[in-house]
Amino acid sequence: MTGTTATLLISCPDQIGLVAKIANFIYANGGNIIHADQHTDFSAGLFLMRIEWQLEGFNLPRGMIEPAFAAIAKPLQASWSLHFSDTVPRLAIWVTKQDHCLLDLLWRQHGGEIRAEIPLIISNHPELHSVANQFGIEFHHIPITAETKIEQEARQLELLREYRIDLVILAKYMQVLTPDFINFFPNIINIHHSFLPAFAGANPYQRAYDRGVKIIGATAHYITADLDQGPIIEQDVVRVSHRDTVGDLIRQGKDLERVVLARAVRLHLQNRVLVYANRTVVFA
Amino acid sequence: MTGTTATLLISCPDQIGLVAKIANFIYANGGNIIHADQHTDFSAGLFLMRIEWQLEGFNLPRGMIEPAFAAIAKPLQASWSLHFSDTVPRLAIWVTKQDHCLLDLLWRQHGGEIRAEIPLIISNHPELHSVANQFGIEFHHIPITAETKIEQEARQLELLREYRIDLVILAKYMQVLTPDFINFFPNIINIHHSFLPAFAGANPYQRAYDRGVKIIGATAHYITADLDQGPIIEQDVVRVSHRDTVGDLIRQGKDLERVVLARAVRLHLQNRVLVYANRTVVFA
Amino acid sequence: MTGTTATLLISCPDQIGLVAKIANFIYANGGNIIHADQHTDFSAGLFLMRIEWQLEGFNLPRGMIEPAFAAIAKPLQASWSLHFSDTVPRLAIWVTKQDHCLLDLLWRQHGGEIRAEIPLIISNHPELHSVANQFGIEFHHIPITAETKIEQEARQLELLREYRIDLVILAKYMQVLTPDFINFFPNIINIHHSFLPAFAGANPYQRAYDRGVKIIGATAHYITADLDQGPIIEQDVVRVSHRDTVGDLIRQGKDLERVVLARAVRLHLQNRVLVYANRTVVFA
Amino acid sequence: MTGTTATLLISCPDQIGLVAKIANFIYANGGNIIHADQHTDFSAGLFLMRIEWQLEGFNLPRGMIEPAFAAIAKPLQASWSLHFSDTVPRLAIWVTKQDHCLLDLLWRQHGGEIRAEIPLIISNHPELHSVANQFGIEFHHIPITAETKIEQEARQLELLREYRIDLVILAKYMQVLTPDFINFFPNIINIHHSFLPAFAGANPYQRAYDRGVKIIGATAHYITADLDQGPIIEQDVVRVSHRDTVGDLIRQGKDLERVVLARAVRLHLQNRVLVYANRTVVFA
Repeated sequence: MTGTTATLLISCPDQIGLVAKIANFIYANGGNIIHADQHTDFSAGLFLMRIEWQLEGFNLPRGMIEPAFAAIAKPLQASWSLHFSDTVPRLAIWVTKQDHCLLDLLWRQHGGEIRAEIPLIISNHPELHSVANQFGIEFHHIPITAETKIEQEARQLELLREYRIDLVILAKYMQVLTPDFINFFPNIINIHHSFLPAFAGANPYQRAYDRGVKIIGATAHYITADLDQGPIIEQDVVRVSHRDTVGDLIRQGKDLERVVLARAVRLHLQNRVLVYANRTVVFA
Repeated sequence: MTGTTATLLISCPDQIGLVAKIANFIYANGGNIIHADQHTDFSAGLFLMRIEWQLEGFNLPRGMIEPAFAAIAKPLQASWSLHFSDTVPRLAIWVTKQDHCLLDLLWRQHGGEIRAEIPLIISNHPELHSVANQFGIEFHHIPITAETKIEQEARQLELLREYRIDLVILAKYMQVLTPDFINFFPNIINIHHSFLPAFAGANPYQRAYDRGVKIIGATAHYITADLDQGPIIEQDVVRVSHRDTVGDLIRQGKDLERVVLARAVRLHLQNRVLVYANRTVVFA
Repeated sequence: MTGTTATLLISCPDQIGLVAKIANFIYANGGNIIHADQHTDFSAGLFLMRIEWQLEGFNLPRGMIEPAFAAIAKPLQASWSLHFSDTVPRLAIWVTKQDHCLLDLLWRQHGGEIRAEIPLIISNHPELHSVANQFGIEFHHIPITAETKIEQEARQLELLREYRIDLVILAKYMQVLTPDFINFFPNIINIHHSFLPAFAGANPYQRAYDRGVKIIGATAHYITADLDQGPIIEQDVVRVSHRDTVGDLIRQGKDLERVVLARAVRLHLQNRVLVYANRTVVFA
Repeated sequence: MTGTTATLLISCPDQIGLVAKIANFIYANGGNIIHADQHTDFSAGLFLMRIEWQLEGFNLPRGMIEPAFAAIAKPLQASWSLHFSDTVPRLAIWVTKQDHCLLDLLWRQHGGEIRAEIPLIISNHPELHSVANQFGIEFHHIPITAETKIEQEARQLELLREYRIDLVILAKYMQVLTPDFINFFPNIINIHHSFLPAFAGANPYQRAYDRGVKIIGATAHYITADLDQGPIIEQDVVRVSHRDTVGDLIRQGKDLERVVLARAVRLHLQNRVLVYANRTVVFA
């Protein structure tokens, strides 16, 4: 058993001594490192690291770790975040009408695969209220029109604050968020279909069918202002054939979306994803 | 052993009795069917079929099969083609400077995996002349500029005629063909990288890297006037990570391109690919 | 829309005229074939076919199709079965304590992906009673010991008769069935983990971990007297690494088992699987 | 550009301070770490690490690194090895009659993908002598019988010494090596087919066909005395169907073997593979 752990995610301009300085900080305080993985992006001149250690035997009290490490990080011009494994993050799942990703996440949380609380479901449609009821989760129906989007986003933000949400999961939420919203609350994971080659715009499955693609995929990524262009966390594909109707492609796409989104959420919750530029390092 | 076989590839407007009529034609002449596969595209109202039978014991002489079947096909308004398994198709491979797909094809042909003659290699650069020499194949260096493209395509067409080429394989030939050329000689297979999501335009591997994609792919397709948009024959993917540099992506992309192109060429040479609209049925 | 269809699955010694005879039978009665796929296993000298046609416009009344086709099939020494697409098959799901495959199947049935009734869940343990309640399905707890297996199997068979079950799905039912049981009720699909290379016997995930495998898999197959050796319907794999603990392998194995079992059940229910010798033809 | 680098592969009983001690050794001597990845196997109580740093600016002369690090490693009871990126390893490829893996490796070495010298090919059959000639590589035909195996292995060992071979690649060498040989020369990578489920013993492709498997695979691993049971470096799979004859399975298996073996050799040559117990950590 590893017990409770602390995890640092760090990125900073590359220079010599970085691994030593960070490892020394943990060693000097009696910590046992259980995972250390480092990546250097030479084209960006950037050092990126994930380091996780056991709190048992660590001499710094929890509350002191952040200020103590800040003193080390500052001269390195590092961006960093500190996470404790016994913090249970709070998720909000946003949906429209499709339930496959929602059910999958609730189920995995129920089975202990996803360690988080899920106190809030938001939808622009009422259809999935019953699923929320079944799992005893608050459901807020917030319809969106072009005219009401700004004020409804204000209401959504208020709910995120009220329920103390750490991460929003767009589990087939078929609405674009405004850049303002994303600025206020940047911790958002989205799932969407992907194709080889890609079909941007409307009816992608129909167009993938029309082109006779042999492989379809799904991509989980963080939301940025540039729609569907945010840093990719996880992707996967499935092979299809001319026998598959548009309906078959959609059904298989759903199976992929479930699995790919669940993997991405899990990686995020284990603090294994570090974003820089428009890409991720996944310390899997 | 199946011996020499004949294969019909047929598409026509869907109606009742098609399988019976086609199968009866073969049965009535004493043919033993060894492969019959049929697909109906309901949205297009189209019937598509591949049927292969042994020539041994077939009562129609070879030269009579085509006219005899034409009489059946005409009232069905069918598009169709007839192929004999002992015909050895003649391929021209077009390249620029990269040798991975060329070598792979030559090697498979050498090893008997690809049943075809390869009498001609055409390139807009001289670099791969030595490979052609090594395999004893004629190599024609035909440089292309914006000004000379039309006349050089005329020369290329002449070479295709001279060498009685049945199929052109663009094995990393980094030039666009004109619609006129494709009209004159439509039997062309191309290979290109694919991404989830796609990156059209220049430097796709760099951009895939910048986006941090987790999967890269390759697509083999027939050439149409709409560049890289022709009917897909085969695709495959490989998983990559943040550890992979642009160079690593390119290297892994090459491995994919080799295998995907070879599979597509094999499927085509076995007359397993039927094109309609902008898609294929692969009777694999 | 294809409307209600009839499907024939046929296998018989290979001879000339088989496709014609079968297609003629349908054509002569005014049927429109929407799927015809045929395979010849030359090493076994066996012809295998799936043929599906629309009942609308078909001149033979439903009840006459079976005797009419029997007259054709008999001289061919054919094994065959006839299925109507509006028949809703009745499934029993057998489980032990793990719920991932059970929930997945119930969920897909609920969402319309699996067209079947599921009136019965049988388990040798009581744990999943609540899941059955939640979905309003009868749950029978039938504990098994070496001493009681024979009599409990009699009780199980009685339940299958009582609930008019067409197909049993072993959704992680951790008990071996006796050859007698399988003789009485041969329509059983099982799911189990698979590895590259394989690890027969106890604790396969631990042993796969010990060997450091890079890929794990799952296999759905029909049950035969030879445990886990029956004809394979569907398989898939997922890539793992040294980072994955035994627990991670199990979790990822569960995800695979869900998807692979669901695909196999769907293929079976669509009458796309033909078994011969110890292998399947999947007319997918 | 990273320039010449040094790489340490280390494993030792887990304890606190390991990352710090190793990183400090490099930092104290002015080294810039470009890759550091660490894994802890908690069930084995083992710490495993790969650390790579630039030699430019490193203050210890090359020849001093080994003794200097030995002083650190000894109290940690560490197993470790030190590698320089400008060392060009020398490979011997052993074959029987099949050329697909041999050609693939020679080709990749030729194209710069595999950074190594390949001065020696050994075979128990004469067929591939011409390939060796074509690439200008010494070919030694060493036939093996049950009676001559011991003395022939002595000759093989002598050749490995004479050509100063660092790594032997069994590229479809269809002979078992004796435990004595493996003791003397343990650096051996093998490639073999794998199946879901597995088929040990003779004619695996025939048996995979008989069982109707839907997926076939290939595994690259280090050789140990326990045949085909050594630590796995890399695996991959390809989907097959009932349409594939035994010959098709073999052909697709060859494609897999080429790619999987090449990846394994590359990982080994980049010093990314650390073996412990019977498994590997691949710091990819």
